[in-house]
Amino acid sequence: MKIGILGYGNLGRGVELAVKKNPDVELAAVFTRRNPAGVKINTPNVPVVKVDDAASWADKIDVMILCGGSATDLPEQTPKFAKMFNVVDSFDTHAKIPAHFENVNAAAESSNHVAIISVGWDPGLFSLARAYSNAILPGGKDYTFWGRGVSQGHSDAIRRIKGVKNAKQYTVPIETALEAVRSGSNPELTTRQKHLRECYVVLEEGADAAEVEREIKTMPNYFADYDTTVNFISEDELIKNHGGLAHGGFVIRTGQTGENHKHVVEFNLKLDSNPEFTANVLVAYARAAHRLSVEGKRGCMTVLDIPPAYLSPVDGATLRKTLL
Amino acid sequence: MKIGILGYGNLGRGVELAVKKNPDVELAAVFTRRNPAGVKINTPNVPVVKVDDAASWADKIDVMILCGGSATDLPEQTPKFAKMFNVVDSFDTHAKIPAHFENVNAAAESSNHVAIISVGWDPGLFSLARAYSNAILPGGKDYTFWGRGVSQGHSDAIRRIKGVKNAKQYTVPIETALEAVRSGSNPELTTRQKHLRECYVVLEEGADAAEVEREIKTMPNYFADYDTTVNFISEDELIKNHGGLAHGGFVIRTGQTGENHKHVVEFNLKLDSNPEFTANVLVAYARAAHRLSVEGKRGCMTVLDIPPAYLSPVDGATLRKTLL
Repeated sequence: MKIGILGYGNLGRGVELAVKKNPDVELAAVFTRRNPAGVKINTPNVPVVKVDDAASWADKIDVMILCGGSATDLPEQTPKFAKMFNVVDSFDTHAKIPAHFENVNAAAESSNHVAIISVGWDPGLFSLARAYSNAILPGGKDYTFWGRGVSQGHSDAIRRIKGVKNAKQYTVPIETALEAVRSGSNPELTTRQKHLRECYVVLEEGADAAEVEREIKTMPNYFADYDTTVNFISEDELIKNHGGLAHGGFVIRTGQTGENHKHVVEFNLKLDSNPEFTANVLVAYARAAHRLSVEGKRGCMTVLDIPPAYLSPVDGATLRKTLL
Repeated sequence: MKIGILGYGNLGRGVELAVKKNPDVELAAVFTRRNPAGVKINTPNVPVVKVDDAASWADKIDVMILCGGSATDLPEQTPKFAKMFNVVDSFDTHAKIPAHFENVNAAAESSNHVAIISVGWDPGLFSLARAYSNAILPGGKDYTFWGRGVSQGHSDAIRRIKGVKNAKQYTVPIETALEAVRSGSNPELTTRQKHLRECYVVLEEGADAAEVEREIKTMPNYFADYDTTVNFISEDELIKNHGGLAHGGFVIRTGQTGENHKHVVEFNLKLDSNPEFTANVLVAYARAAHRLSVEGKRGCMTVLDIPPAYLSPVDGATLRKTLL
């Protein structure tokens, strides 16, 4: 299976690494909006191509993996490239998924392509955990915890405060809340009871630390509803100790059967590299997109629509023998 | 959707309870090998029918849920009833799944029915966890821990020892092994390092306790490779404290991406009632079997072949909006 990577940031580099671990997958080309001459990739003999020339690659690529951001790139790119290629994206703005689905579906249907959107871990594997456990435990209760990991949105919000030079914000699940959920006691948890927000902030020279801390802790939506800690550190320390891309989280559903039998279904992830793991999920679903396309399927799908066996390089009989 | 239950033991009663929690599912009849007059079920106005009369119900039942045992019932029943009905079973003898699949597939294909086999949690949800995480983390390592829960096979093995009146055996995962796996250190674990075996034994009058304990602890395959504890208790105590059907377990896959980024994917279950939870999984997959049949699909499938959305009573657009 020949894949293309569109966008060579953290996620695109992660897809390139994932390809090397999957012998049935080959990287055909990397597409970029930058000047291709300035983009050095890590795979020998694979061309870097200007994104405007993508159309001429339509016959040479089985699935294009779109590695842009959800805010502005993917809403435009996924429908556009679904007209030329089978595509997989990691669109993760939950509230806008239905509209994105409709746009991509129209493009993929009209051009006989398969598009799989919102692939990754949330949305993605976490959505699967919710879907399976909801179908199996009707009337139960869902809990999702994120972290420990960096929230880009919260880090950006801190950086916009006057006097802040740089910042990283970790979302931290609260262990006692997790344990209460796992006990099957179906607790009602407030926002504050589920997650802590841990901030590492580099100040501009002469900035007022107390004022910055106050502004962070009282910021509506982002921090006001949470217990937030603010640590002022040097830029060196931020780069040295807080440059990682680790993340993870927990999806738990609790429910009852019969008279009073409690059940707890939990899925959790602990990831050293959020983009590299997401990239691996994208490559597995690219395999599914290719197969579905070969079968004559078309249109937009999500992880909820894909039989798990389609993600595997191994055939059905071997899966039944080894994994079932 | 109208379902039938074949076999009214713990699992069949669990399916009956599950039906009450799923408004789109209706119980049409319970089929039994016993004298129907002697089988009292908990749903008013639903007939209990002699299993020999099942053929006359072919048009009145969308999916027959087979609630027999894997040792002798299902190998015979599933192919037989797949000729008359769409069927779902919980066949769980891992090594015999490929042969069972072929037998059921031949029957279902030839009669235009859908059969979904080996539905439950292991095989079943645990198989899904293994399939997804294997596709996403190639080159990683799988771990499965079971328990804490009663192993029927090990309890039976103890009961066969001379001098034993009754017994229950709990399989207990070893917490330090679980933690080592979760750390991402990819430990090589021996059988003894993964699980303990905890036995509760009622002796016949005059039996030699020390000899029974020695026989248990040295029994090949079942106990010799484990750290085993043996507790002698009264029959009253066994009935009072060890009659529960709780179970559960953990499926963990660890793997690397890039240079040295570790990832841990974990799925775990904590179940107060093994048969009631398994029954809920069966009903969700019965829904999928019905839909696939309405779409014109036929033949044998497993959980690996079924798109997750097919398990849900909710439509695709709603799933995307609420769960993705």
